[in-house]
Formats: sequence, structure tokens, C-alpha cells
Amino acid sequence: MTQERKFQVGVIGAGTCTPEEAQAAYIVGQEIARRGAVLVCGGLGGVMEAACQGSKDAGGTTVGIVPTSRKEDANPYVDIAIVTNMGHARNAIVVSSSDILIAVAGEYGTLCEIALGLKMGKTIVSLAGGWDIEGVVTAKSPGLAVDTAFKILLQ
Amino acid sequence: MTQERKFQVGVIGAGTCTPEEAQAAYIVGQEIARRGAVLVCGGLGGVMEAACQGSKDAGGTTVGIVPTSRKEDANPYVDIAIVTNMGHARNAIVVSSSDILIAVAGEYGTLCEIALGLKMGKTIVSLAGGWDIEGVVTAKSPGLAVDTAFKILLQ
Amino acid sequence: MTQERKFQVGVIGAGTCTPEEAQAAYIVGQEIARRGAVLVCGGLGGVMEAACQGSKDAGGTTVGIVPTSRKEDANPYVDIAIVTNMGHARNAIVVSSSDILIAVAGEYGTLCEIALGLKMGKTIVSLAGGWDIEGVVTAKSPGLAVDTAFKILLQ
Amino acid sequence: MTQERKFQVGVIGAGTCTPEEAQAAYIVGQEIARRGAVLVCGGLGGVMEAACQGSKDAGGTTVGIVPTSRKEDANPYVDIAIVTNMGHARNAIVVSSSDILIAVAGEYGTLCEIALGLKMGKTIVSLAGGWDIEGVVTAKSPGLAVDTAFKILLQ
Repeated sequence: MTQERKFQVGVIGAGTCTPEEAQAAYIVGQEIARRGAVLVCGGLGGVMEAACQGSKDAGGTTVGIVPTSRKEDANPYVDIAIVTNMGHARNAIVVSSSDILIAVAGEYGTLCEIALGLKMGKTIVSLAGGWDIEGVVTAKSPGLAVDTAFKILLQ
Repeated sequence: MTQERKFQVGVIGAGTCTPEEAQAAYIVGQEIARRGAVLVCGGLGGVMEAACQGSKDAGGTTVGIVPTSRKEDANPYVDIAIVTNMGHARNAIVVSSSDILIAVAGEYGTLCEIALGLKMGKTIVSLAGGWDIEGVVTAKSPGLAVDTAFKILLQ
Repeated sequence: MTQERKFQVGVIGAGTCTPEEAQAAYIVGQEIARRGAVLVCGGLGGVMEAACQGSKDAGGTTVGIVPTSRKEDANPYVDIAIVTNMGHARNAIVVSSSDILIAVAGEYGTLCEIALGLKMGKTIVSLAGGWDIEGVVTAKSPGLAVDTAFKILLQ
Repeated sequence: MTQERKFQVGVIGAGTCTPEEAQAAYIVGQEIARRGAVLVCGGLGGVMEAACQGSKDAGGTTVGIVPTSRKEDANPYVDIAIVTNMGHARNAIVVSSSDILIAVAGEYGTLCEIALGLKMGKTIVSLAGGWDIEGVVTAKSPGLAVDTAFKILLQ
């Protein structure tokens, strides 16, 4: 990566979530923006939307890699919509476009992304309470998750 | 599916495996062929190759959906090579092209396929000793795994 | 490719076509099967369906790489349905899975496949009357198109 | 699209090009940035790099959707690198992520993107001297190409 290109941090999690998960995702998005990184996600609702909103509220840039054929399907906090029309196969693009990934809760789609990330040799930081898969780094709070991610990125 | 089209049964597992896993995969492939179904897999070595070999030895048809850009990368027991040049994103095509999936051991790539399958509402039958993910049906032997899969397919 | 694996011949053309185009595609499919090769196509109607029907009537094997998420969307003459859920991006898989391609008429989707094939260094044989793009080999009849394709494959 | 999301304008053309084509692509990139739109491209060299450079020099934002598995393969003027690892199939994502496309010269890869764009119902504006395909809008200069594109976008 050229020195000038910003870090791209993936946020993964389900398209529907609890208010607590949304709050955690919002903080993750905010902290990513505050560190000057671009937020990459799947572009839909739930955790993805909350993280994008947090990032935008902190002045960041957000990328949504949507599974459908329409830019309009991206959540309103997505700046740049990548339209894949590839369904779940777009998960691989979310993962490979991210320098590191932070998982907020999530179900089977998120588990797939975690597994892909580990397969590709990427670090996955997961908020406590999410999938507990060997090889994932866990963090006790959204702020600590982003701290941990950037410590690893900047090593 | 038209009544005449054969069932397509996916076999998922790692590209390198132990002799015991290869033996299990071989039996799974054999039993799929004996029931007249087409075997679908990722087309490479390890579990995929052993399953294809079992299927060919029992007179079956095998499909390998390879991640690379070359038909030649398919293992020698693949009849029909689908060349995706899509890397890990081809996992989604293996899963969506299968009416049901049988997992033999496997690591992160297999975990991704299991997660995708569950996300798409497909049944995953896993040999005991593999990934233990909520929603997966486990089977104690290769023969029982195929039995279980066909009972579910024919319901 | 192992010596034993059959040739995979792609047939490309539009999902709706005239009776004359369907007749030409049917003959192309028949001749591919008579030479023992597997027919690969996009799996839908029009030219794809007519070619598959010709192949099946001559005892061949047919593969349909469909753009949707449902095996049932393949035409009834497809033996093996590859379900990509990738829309037009599946064109690249049709092309890279084919050792050589035969174009029957066709519109923009076919033009894309011709261009991809040429980009990947594959030979494209086109029936007279279809897209006239530099680098495409033209043939005056369906029979001659298949003759030409196999002469090139067997060189 | 939400009213706030910027237009995404695709620039398509070959990975190697003449100095004249690079100059034209540079002006196209510059004019896209001056109108406040995001430039989307395939992320590599030649026309893609020149267009990104023009856009960056005018203060714009650039997105490179690369065919490989490495963010580092994007040209140095790409702000946001989307890593597809999908080879030529990534062309479909370049096209579907663009509200409108401008073609600068180009060879078979560009022809494929033009065909995909027309198939998806997108407007393609092509600089004189490039592919002359029915349905493409031609423009006599880089400036006029961008003018035409925005007139159509703002209709």
C-alpha cells in the first residue's frame, strides 16, 4: 500500500441487530473515523448502518459493498456504494478489501466473513459476546476493539 | 428442479487432510454416486480429491468449481471443471449449486462454506469431529452422513 | 487438462432468439455432443436452451452456469446447473470454463462474452451474421463452426 | 440514491495506453472531480491511472476496483481500493457501481465493459476513436464527454 493511502477497516455484523449492538457498532465506526481510516462494510442495515453512521458523525469516509444490483440499497450513511450483484459472495470482497476486521455480534453471514478473514491471514477483532472461533482476537468494549485493531495495524 | 435433473450433493473439506479424513471422504463420494447424484466440490486436493475419486470409482459424475483460472488445477477425478478465477468467493458457488452439503473435517474455508450454507437455508451434514456450529446436523460415519442427507433430500 | 477429461465447448448467444437461430444452436449442440465434448453455456433460454436440447438429443452432457440464485432457473436440457447468483459477472465463468467458444447471433451479453474470451486468449468461432469483432473466427454454417472449433482444439 | 450521495462516474479503458490517451483520460478525471463526482475505475495503470491522477489533482475522490488479491496493485492515485480477486469478472462490478461510464480508447476488456453497461441499461459515453458499438454516445473531446455525461445524469 502506498504510504498515503488510508487504512481500510472492515466492520462486519448482521443486517438486523439489538440497540446495544447498534450502539457498539456506532462507537466502532466513530473511533475508526477519528483515527483517519476508511470504514468498509457490506453496506446494508443493522450493524453496518450503525457503524457507518458513527463514522459519518465523526467526519469519516464509508464504503458499502452491497450484495444487490442497486446503489440505492446501500444504507444512507454509505458514501461510496460498490454494487456487486453477487449476493453472499460479496463477503469475500468485504474481507479482502479490509486491512483488518472488527466483528460486532453477527450470525452466519458474519461467521462466514470471520472464517474467510482467518483463511486469508487477516486479523479479526471480535467484540465479546460474538462468535468465539479459534484465531479471533476478542475485545471487551468497542473502544478497546478499535484500539487493538490499530495497534496491530501500526506494528 | 425438473424431476429428471439429478440431485447435486456438495462435499466440503480442506485441500489437505489426514488419511482417515481422505478415507471418509472417499466413502462419502462413493455413496453419493451409488445413489445416482452428482458430486459438487471445490475441485482441489485433500477431501475434495478423495471424494471425487470415490465417486468416480462408483461410476458417478463429479464437478469441481476451482478458485483459479486454469481447468488443469482441478484434481484428476473431476469430470467437469468450472473455472471461476474468483478465489475464496467461489465457495459461495459451491454452496449455492448444491442441494445439500456434507462436511468432512475442514478448516476455515470449510467453516465459511458451512456458514454460507446455513445462511442460505441449506442443510449441512457434518461428520463427527468437524466444526460444531449450531444448525449443523452431525453424523457418526460417512455412510450415515450420506443416508441422512438423502433422507432429507427425499422428504 | 488430464487426457481423460473431456473438452468443454462454450455456446454463447442471447436468451431469446429467432427460430432460425434456435435451429442453428440446436445443430451446434448436437455436433458438440457427437464429438464427445461437454457443452457449457449460461443455462437460460433462447440460444442456450436450443443448444442444450441438441446436445441432449445426441446423448451429450450439458452444463448451465446460471446468473440467478436458483437451480430451477436452468433450462430443462441442462444436466448440471451451476448456481452463481452473480448476474452478468457469471459470463466470465462461462468463458473461462470453456476450452473454446461458439457464438450464435446474440446481443450485448454475447458481445461481452466474445470480448472476455478474446481478452483471455480463447478462440471464438462465430456464426455468420453475429457480432463482427476483430479476432473472431467466422463460420458459414453451424456444422462448419463446430468443425472449425474442433480442428483448433485438436491442433 | 440518497440526494446526498455523490454521483459515481466510471472511467473505462486499457491498462496501457498512448500519451494522447493518457492525456485525454487525465482531463476526463479532472472534469469529473470538478463536478463533485467520485471516479470509479478498474484501479490499474494506463487510462485508469491517468484518470485517477487527473481526479486527484483536481481534489476529487477515486475508487479502484482491482482484479487481483492485493490492495497494493491499485495505482498510486486510487484513494479507496476494492480488492475483488475476481479477474475479469470484476468488470461487472466497475460497471454496476457507476451511474454512467466514459470510455477512453481501450481494447477487449473495455469492449466487455461497454457491452455490460449497455446490457444493464447504462449510458456509455465514448471518446471518438474508441469502440464504435451501436448504443454508445460518442463525444469529440474529453471535456465534451464529461459535459455530455453530466447532462444525462442531471436530466
